[in-house]
Amino acid sequence: MDPRIRQHAEILVDHSTGVEPDDNVLVKAKPAAEDLVVALAEEIGDIGANIAVSMGSQRATRAYLRASDPEDLDTPEHTLAEMAETDVKIVIKGLENTLEMSDVPSETMTAHQEANRPIMAEQMGKRWVGTQFPASGEAQKAEMSTEEYEEFVYDAVNKDWDAQREFQAQMVEILDPADEVRIVSGDTTDITMSVEGMKTINDYGEKNLPGGEVFTAPVADSVAGEVLFDKPLVRYGQEIEGAYLRFEGGEVVEHSAEKNEETLTEMLNTDEGARRLGELGIGMNRDIDQFTDNMLFDEKMGDTVHLAIGKAYDECLPEGESGNESAIHTDMIVDMAEDSFIEVDGEVVQRDGTFRFEDGFEA
Amino acid sequence: MDPRIRQHAEILVDHSTGVEPDDNVLVKAKPAAEDLVVALAEEIGDIGANIAVSMGSQRATRAYLRASDPEDLDTPEHTLAEMAETDVKIVIKGLENTLEMSDVPSETMTAHQEANRPIMAEQMGKRWVGTQFPASGEAQKAEMSTEEYEEFVYDAVNKDWDAQREFQAQMVEILDPADEVRIVSGDTTDITMSVEGMKTINDYGEKNLPGGEVFTAPVADSVAGEVLFDKPLVRYGQEIEGAYLRFEGGEVVEHSAEKNEETLTEMLNTDEGARRLGELGIGMNRDIDQFTDNMLFDEKMGDTVHLAIGKAYDECLPEGESGNESAIHTDMIVDMAEDSFIEVDGEVVQRDGTFRFEDGFEA
Repeated sequence: MDPRIRQHAEILVDHSTGVEPDDNVLVKAKPAAEDLVVALAEEIGDIGANIAVSMGSQRATRAYLRASDPEDLDTPEHTLAEMAETDVKIVIKGLENTLEMSDVPSETMTAHQEANRPIMAEQMGKRWVGTQFPASGEAQKAEMSTEEYEEFVYDAVNKDWDAQREFQAQMVEILDPADEVRIVSGDTTDITMSVEGMKTINDYGEKNLPGGEVFTAPVADSVAGEVLFDKPLVRYGQEIEGAYLRFEGGEVVEHSAEKNEETLTEMLNTDEGARRLGELGIGMNRDIDQFTDNMLFDEKMGDTVHLAIGKAYDECLPEGESGNESAIHTDMIVDMAEDSFIEVDGEVVQRDGTFRFEDGFEA
Repeated sequence: MDPRIRQHAEILVDHSTGVEPDDNVLVKAKPAAEDLVVALAEEIGDIGANIAVSMGSQRATRAYLRASDPEDLDTPEHTLAEMAETDVKIVIKGLENTLEMSDVPSETMTAHQEANRPIMAEQMGKRWVGTQFPASGEAQKAEMSTEEYEEFVYDAVNKDWDAQREFQAQMVEILDPADEVRIVSGDTTDITMSVEGMKTINDYGEKNLPGGEVFTAPVADSVAGEVLFDKPLVRYGQEIEGAYLRFEGGEVVEHSAEKNEETLTEMLNTDEGARRLGELGIGMNRDIDQFTDNMLFDEKMGDTVHLAIGKAYDECLPEGESGNESAIHTDMIVDMAEDSFIEVDGEVVQRDGTFRFEDGFEA
């Protein structure tokens, strides 16, 4: 077996989830990722934990959903019961065709997600990680050969996560006590927001592997200004390109898109919270050096920031406070590599992708 | 998709398990059988039931077991919880390599089966069926091309099960009220047993698909005589050929085998019940016309009987009585096509494979 797959499995088990003897571990994957499942099984057996391997079939899910009446889609109680007794869940992405679900009606997809929400909620109380196997489908989506994509994935995933944690901690130190953040890119993006009282989280490969971002939640009413997102966003199989949002008093008051504007409109109209920001994230994984149309990687890319409309993460909020609520949480990316800066409380902390604490930084 | 796969799925859902709206259905398979999983998913969605697809990986199970200390193997509580909330379980055999587990120590395999026993016990209280997808591994084991094996499997599986039930009912009528059964084949097998008070079960494709046998339990102490089993038996990766057993007072008092006799000895020494018969079965599925080294099919073959050492099925026993108990239930087959007969209460009911109620029978 490719030694990079074994290393990936070790990191998932030791670093991301800390599997211990007698843990009940659930490994979810698709058959394209079987090699990583095999490597994980060996690690988990070695530790003396219990395993359940559950590979799904996208073709079967598609067939099931197309045959189902959306109103009949209930929470599968057996899957919920399995989740309730799980200590550690490892979810591996890795598909042969990333568009396998493209001809399932969006109404059915929404009902399916709704039916599975109790299972997701149960998962949130456990140790879990989502990761990527370099399968042919995501390679194609990334516009790479499968072998090139393998190198891309393992560069991003198999790294010294302690060193990465320390590197990112420097940005946490800046952002965590801060009051105001301003993001400027070219003449299309200039947006400010308060992060006063919010917690900044250091993501170094625990719940997401690869990790590589620091993120927090904006004070919902404080967001003002405009932003043009540089990278296309895929939603319900529709690619939204050139999305533009203008905020006043925390709310989107104007929006447009070069392609599929109506999908963006639909998204913003999901609920009240869908017109407000739920996350400010700063990508810091320099081994992710290109966009691959896969948010697990894109949002961690060096020289980018991302803003998410919709739900805020509880871990970013002051003790006991609730943040922006929404059924959605959609990340959108701004490229900060050129003609860009991040300002924190009036001081530039990143210019053209280089942080204040790095060589080559120009204030 | 091959229309035979759709027909197979329909029979599993409608005839074998009677899936109803809101049932929680669990589909277990290996990736080689994905086509049947897809066809099942469509049927199950159409009915309005809930589905969980859980494909395992033999390579992962092997890696897990080889890495595990047998003493650490516990019941996976998350899998047990899933089983407890399942209404219908559909288990599909179908492998790329039937010997994938051949280098797992037998001690580990035994501990693994022991750890999974509570899950099997939970399953027994549900609606369930075990079936076969014609994968390359079982085709190879059957010494056929995959396409030839497909024809073999679908001939055995996709049939008129109501007609088969009626055909088999004629043998149930003979065996159910009977006292004594004698089985004679050539000069190597002549064995008698009482079935007084035992129930004869008509298996027409419910818990096994293909079905195609009638079976009962011998009165444990009554078995006397000798039997030479014509077909090899694989146990823990060891093929036992030419197994011979001689019974007195219900117990094996002499045994031998032409190949791997020590494995047969080990099997008989499992526990006290392993030296007694737990089942007498009569194969009646005429579409299974050759041995394929796969007990799901072999034991249903026309012109055969099978005897199992070990545990008796509860459904064969008189109300409230317990039968032969053992950790094992191992079927062994006698070919009845030539120079053979079955006698019930002194009357020949089958000669050279032809039943009394069929054309061409010679008393």
